Amino acid sequence: MEFAFDARTLGLRDNLLDFMDRHIYPAEAVFEEELDGLDNRWAWDSSPTLRHLRTEARRRGLWNLFLPGENGAGLTNLQYAPLAEITGRSPHLAPAVLNCAAPDTGNMEVLSLFGTPEQKVQWLEPLLAGEIRSSFAMTEPEVASSDATNISTSIERDGSDYVINGHKWWITGAMNPNAKILIVMGKTDPDAERHRQQSMILVPRETPGVRIERAMHVLGYDDHEHGGHGELFFDDVRVPAANIISAEGDGFAIAQARLGPGRIHHCMRSIGLAERALQLLCARADERVAFGKPLSEQGVIRSWIAESRVKIEQLRLLTLKAAWNMDVNGNKAAHSDIQAIKIATPATVQWILDKAIQAHGAAGLSQDFPLAYAYALIRTLRFADGPDEVHKDALARAELRQQRAARSAKASA
Amino acid sequence: MEFAFDARTLGLRDNLLDFMDRHIYPAEAVFEEELDGLDNRWAWDSSPTLRHLRTEARRRGLWNLFLPGENGAGLTNLQYAPLAEITGRSPHLAPAVLNCAAPDTGNMEVLSLFGTPEQKVQWLEPLLAGEIRSSFAMTEPEVASSDATNISTSIERDGSDYVINGHKWWITGAMNPNAKILIVMGKTDPDAERHRQQSMILVPRETPGVRIERAMHVLGYDDHEHGGHGELFFDDVRVPAANIISAEGDGFAIAQARLGPGRIHHCMRSIGLAERALQLLCARADERVAFGKPLSEQGVIRSWIAESRVKIEQLRLLTLKAAWNMDVNGNKAAHSDIQAIKIATPATVQWILDKAIQAHGAAGLSQDFPLAYAYALIRTLRFADGPDEVHKDALARAELRQQRAARSAKASA
Amino acid sequence: MEFAFDARTLGLRDNLLDFMDRHIYPAEAVFEEELDGLDNRWAWDSSPTLRHLRTEARRRGLWNLFLPGENGAGLTNLQYAPLAEITGRSPHLAPAVLNCAAPDTGNMEVLSLFGTPEQKVQWLEPLLAGEIRSSFAMTEPEVASSDATNISTSIERDGSDYVINGHKWWITGAMNPNAKILIVMGKTDPDAERHRQQSMILVPRETPGVRIERAMHVLGYDDHEHGGHGELFFDDVRVPAANIISAEGDGFAIAQARLGPGRIHHCMRSIGLAERALQLLCARADERVAFGKPLSEQGVIRSWIAESRVKIEQLRLLTLKAAWNMDVNGNKAAHSDIQAIKIATPATVQWILDKAIQAHGAAGLSQDFPLAYAYALIRTLRFADGPDEVHKDALARAELRQQRAARSAKASA
Amino acid sequence: MEFAFDARTLGLRDNLLDFMDRHIYPAEAVFEEELDGLDNRWAWDSSPTLRHLRTEARRRGLWNLFLPGENGAGLTNLQYAPLAEITGRSPHLAPAVLNCAAPDTGNMEVLSLFGTPEQKVQWLEPLLAGEIRSSFAMTEPEVASSDATNISTSIERDGSDYVINGHKWWITGAMNPNAKILIVMGKTDPDAERHRQQSMILVPRETPGVRIERAMHVLGYDDHEHGGHGELFFDDVRVPAANIISAEGDGFAIAQARLGPGRIHHCMRSIGLAERALQLLCARADERVAFGKPLSEQGVIRSWIAESRVKIEQLRLLTLKAAWNMDVNGNKAAHSDIQAIKIATPATVQWILDKAIQAHGAAGLSQDFPLAYAYALIRTLRFADGPDEVHKDALARAELRQQRAARSAKASA
Repeated sequence: MEFAFDARTLGLRDNLLDFMDRHIYPAEAVFEEELDGLDNRWAWDSSPTLRHLRTEARRRGLWNLFLPGENGAGLTNLQYAPLAEITGRSPHLAPAVLNCAAPDTGNMEVLSLFGTPEQKVQWLEPLLAGEIRSSFAMTEPEVASSDATNISTSIERDGSDYVINGHKWWITGAMNPNAKILIVMGKTDPDAERHRQQSMILVPRETPGVRIERAMHVLGYDDHEHGGHGELFFDDVRVPAANIISAEGDGFAIAQARLGPGRIHHCMRSIGLAERALQLLCARADERVAFGKPLSEQGVIRSWIAESRVKIEQLRLLTLKAAWNMDVNGNKAAHSDIQAIKIATPATVQWILDKAIQAHGAAGLSQDFPLAYAYALIRTLRFADGPDEVHKDALARAELRQQRAARSAKASA
Repeated sequence: MEFAFDARTLGLRDNLLDFMDRHIYPAEAVFEEELDGLDNRWAWDSSPTLRHLRTEARRRGLWNLFLPGENGAGLTNLQYAPLAEITGRSPHLAPAVLNCAAPDTGNMEVLSLFGTPEQKVQWLEPLLAGEIRSSFAMTEPEVASSDATNISTSIERDGSDYVINGHKWWITGAMNPNAKILIVMGKTDPDAERHRQQSMILVPRETPGVRIERAMHVLGYDDHEHGGHGELFFDDVRVPAANIISAEGDGFAIAQARLGPGRIHHCMRSIGLAERALQLLCARADERVAFGKPLSEQGVIRSWIAESRVKIEQLRLLTLKAAWNMDVNGNKAAHSDIQAIKIATPATVQWILDKAIQAHGAAGLSQDFPLAYAYALIRTLRFADGPDEVHKDALARAELRQQRAARSAKASA
Repeated sequence: MEFAFDARTLGLRDNLLDFMDRHIYPAEAVFEEELDGLDNRWAWDSSPTLRHLRTEARRRGLWNLFLPGENGAGLTNLQYAPLAEITGRSPHLAPAVLNCAAPDTGNMEVLSLFGTPEQKVQWLEPLLAGEIRSSFAMTEPEVASSDATNISTSIERDGSDYVINGHKWWITGAMNPNAKILIVMGKTDPDAERHRQQSMILVPRETPGVRIERAMHVLGYDDHEHGGHGELFFDDVRVPAANIISAEGDGFAIAQARLGPGRIHHCMRSIGLAERALQLLCARADERVAFGKPLSEQGVIRSWIAESRVKIEQLRLLTLKAAWNMDVNGNKAAHSDIQAIKIATPATVQWILDKAIQAHGAAGLSQDFPLAYAYALIRTLRFADGPDEVHKDALARAELRQQRAARSAKASA
Repeated sequence: MEFAFDARTLGLRDNLLDFMDRHIYPAEAVFEEELDGLDNRWAWDSSPTLRHLRTEARRRGLWNLFLPGENGAGLTNLQYAPLAEITGRSPHLAPAVLNCAAPDTGNMEVLSLFGTPEQKVQWLEPLLAGEIRSSFAMTEPEVASSDATNISTSIERDGSDYVINGHKWWITGAMNPNAKILIVMGKTDPDAERHRQQSMILVPRETPGVRIERAMHVLGYDDHEHGGHGELFFDDVRVPAANIISAEGDGFAIAQARLGPGRIHHCMRSIGLAERALQLLCARADERVAFGKPLSEQGVIRSWIAESRVKIEQLRLLTLKAAWNMDVNGNKAAHSDIQAIKIATPATVQWILDKAIQAHGAAGLSQDFPLAYAYALIRTLRFADGPDEVHKDALARAELRQQRAARSAKASA
């Protein structure tokens, strides 16, 4: 057991921390202004600042860090996790500048693992180069998104094509006109075994029948900095059969593969956001005087600071351990660890943000600090791939099974 | 001791509940659409629907219910509280339709109690008639708003005028061009005794030197349905000396008087919002099926429902008791009771809203349900006239004083 | 609506508060010492101090206050509740001195309402006179006590007798040799309708076949001041048929009747204990200096004090309202209100005690303060007649039913 | 970074787990019975079962595992921590059997590090051999134990002796007549620099003037299984000057050294107790049926199980990381990490125990399960070397300092 980072991680961390200080933080406000000035507020990746920073990130070797294997930086989950954390401190800008922003990361992983050579050339390469964006269309309004087997979108074979019909929402990034490709999850065979009914298929944004109805809001935000969250209809959308990913019936398995590392990334970025909130809380506590002394000399504020620090340390260790477990034992073996970080992270970071906001007074809820937006971002994570309660239930069932097994082993010993 | 409402309250409740069902709830969506279609999105009181509903409210005798005495409905706090609660279920629309919306209510109370006959004719009468709106400019960015003695805006006598210089923000309603009059809190005598330095003065919106800089956002919302929250500069703003309210040095005392009933109203409306959230939670729990059974058959959701109900009952009783105490013993005697509801209400309603949102999944954070907006509204109440922590500290000091007195009395008995 | 106590309540409160100050608090330590010195530590009602104080209580008219109707003081629940609260501040001594201690109160109510004239003469009269004690034997180890229909003890008719077989535990007071009579709940007809299978029967302690196995402990306490909590076996215990209470099959209904007011009493006494804890917390906070200033000047401690006060006020109002509802509308109509106080009270008072203990340091857990013992007492209330979770579930089901009804009413309007 | 245990730890874990299953758990009840049967209930180490198990533990090499260096097993903190955890599952018996029970462990560390050769022969050797027991007398009733500089016991030089006068309480183990040696903390020079006033001195139990006044209780328990917690008076207690440990003025520094690893051990044992509670909770949830289905199929119980697992994982990682940090960077560098585990562990384990108790109903509070006793044990840890609030305050101050330093570094970059 050893809690120090390895040399490669340390090197990349230093590089990234320096990049954040020199380039990312100073550019945050400019980036937001540029987006407000765009003709299409969703086309965030046309920001000149973003493009300029991307060049610098590539020059520094801070590009596609998320992607294991030879297409990417080749980092393990354990190596990438602390870097994802740092990008999370500037969630609108840093992940995008490093080409490490969701949902593209997950989509690139899917194409990298399961794409045909043709699919890779057409879609993976421009994604890896940061030239286009993508979306992942899974969530549907009529069914509990936590139960992937419920999906009702149909993908029907018709000659050399597939025809897609369905209704999706909360499709992150889909409002951005540069999100050229959608990975759509639907059912190719509703009569197959429960986890073999689903397939994923590539649908170019411009295909006839794809209708982008509206943008969903999150607590007053439209998240245009991420390309928003679209509600989409698919009406007789026809794509070539070659657009299927992997094979018919593989959709559920691909989704499982996609969500593991993705969740590690989400959690680590959230921890970065919690660190930033704690920085802001401490700075505010030193600056703000109430009733004759700075907030930092008031016991209640100090207890928030201490509890925030203790919570962050625990979350980070839990997430790093899950990353290590995935690297060493595989995603399946690490399933309960992944579920544990899904349960712990959003709720805890929400708590920390609430305290940081409270110490800022009404300003903490306003556009003058990144706390309110961060709150909205983290709050959505409590449903993002299934609500907290579903993860708790699943983890509890796993725990009960293990305890039962241990009791039987003991009884028969 | 008696927990039933009196006859007048019961009559008004029935009337109001019927009005809500027939007129308010069905008009909510239309009202929002009308506002989105306005040239000036802040001018909410030009909505045709609002105007039409106001006529009906007046016809039913549901007008200015908040105002005690002959200018208003003449209700006690205890009689008005359960009515305010009902309006809180539709917070964008119902209080405004009944001319019972903040900050106008507090301003009308101030003018009613402390205004000169001329001030009443010029400002109170059109406010009571719902013809104009008003704002209350107290909060300043540089100082802890919880400590009113810190105010830095200056109100200086200059011949027959006062000249005002200062910087205010979070001035609710001030973005609305129909907010014709501002009550501004500032210091007329920084050398006077601590609670006699402040004065309030009437500043017509159109006075030269009044600059409305920008609108503050709350968790992504601009609250245009309430006229927003303005950041304002006062640069050598000159008004006649007759615009002073009551007299120089009375500002602190008027603020205290204004905030008592105002807080009761806020709290009761918040409880109404909690009731609506619980309604939505129960409806959702019945409709939504996950893992083979409705949410309403799942234990965790049921525990949220039960705890919400128990919390709401307690909050309501606490607030009604504070209202009763103010009516019977006066605002000063009821000070700790008022502080208690300030402490309990926003935090508790925030909890309930969080659960209701969680049961709705991502939809709960979206524009499709009133929950996300309600969350933003309630979250701001945790600072609205001083953060939770300040109220707790004050209540604790009062408790410690009382316990000390009881111990001495016992010791000397 | 009116939050002041009526004249009779006020008079009794003054009387009782004076009695507590003059007689109860000064006698607490002596009473505990006397019990430690007894040959039979369970025979608490042989304490000379207790007997002496009882005389004084009777002289003052502070006797059997709990009992409505002509046998007792004839108070309503709403009148008795604030008196019960005061006795709860000294839970070992005050309720016993006033002959208002559980489980005798519930048993006297049962006999008063459902006893035959002979049963009343034999058992109710000496109980009302404080000459003997009683126990209520319902809880069984093998079944969830929250589900009264599960009871497995059998009461079988055999000629002119009933024969009882069963196993009970947590039978409060049963270790006291002066607990001369047991009310035993069992099944007379396992084949009857679900709520008609149970009966209650009077079993004199000395009946052959009654075996008192051991005393149950609660967090290290044996609660001998209340006669402990016995584990009992009933092996072919034979009593005359006339010992049945009311009639065969009435057991469930009697239990429901018994638990309503009993729970109000428990909750009010718990609130009294919370008040005492807050007194101790405030006194400690003033006395104890840490890091150069008294605890009462430290923000975290002050936040505990404020939150405790706010919680106590809410609990008290909730409980008084439930008492009022029972008086005015009957126990059945007040069912959800009773459930609400069961849910809210123990958990909240546990929180307050935990904070008071924490402010006392290790001494707070010791025999030097009444806090640790109070903690054990309150902790058991979270199961006393069914665990919190069962009450929450039931309350939620009632809420869901009401909301459904309201939705249908609206839909069909 | 690496989350697997090393080979030596794995070997000892297997050995210890086997020992627990074969020897410790089956002996728990017998041990308690033996203690109840002793003439002196405090003399727990005269239990035959204990002595027998100690022989087996030594045979297996499971002896003095806690002690680094050549006197003990030579394990690092990181290696010992997971073993301490396992012993914590049976807190009355396992640590004692392995000669790894507090307060002897800390005392042996002090003697090992700071004792003279004579002191080692006389006291360390019999302690290492498990022949005698010891106590550590630091806490005093009149002062906040969290502030060691406040200690009022005096140690005055008088010729070739020291004379000790003072009043101590909560001296764990001191009721046991076999606790032959006390390490007493007092002041040798009240005028010295703040952290140089204190000294530690060895006082044999039988020295004239040592008076053991009474045993302190913890939530109704006297903890005789650990030798109780004594209140002691030292009245002109005279010991040779050679009994001083290290040198005059070293007391504070020795205490700091002693508490670091001690706290790691406490926390790891507490985590073991939490694991046992979770085992019991899962077993109970499977066995107990309420309302027609096992508790393990009820959502609320499952949420407790999941949250308990997530909390335990986080606590364990936090504690292991603190152990690693102490090993690699020293106790001083690890100070905030140690404070973090002090803050997190007792409160979290208390939560888990509360849930496990709740699932057991009243039985969970009784002598039939180890949960109630465990609750008392863990609750005391929230003050054991300073209350939670003191640790939070200190951690917050350290965090604020670091954040200030980071801000200045950035500002000057």
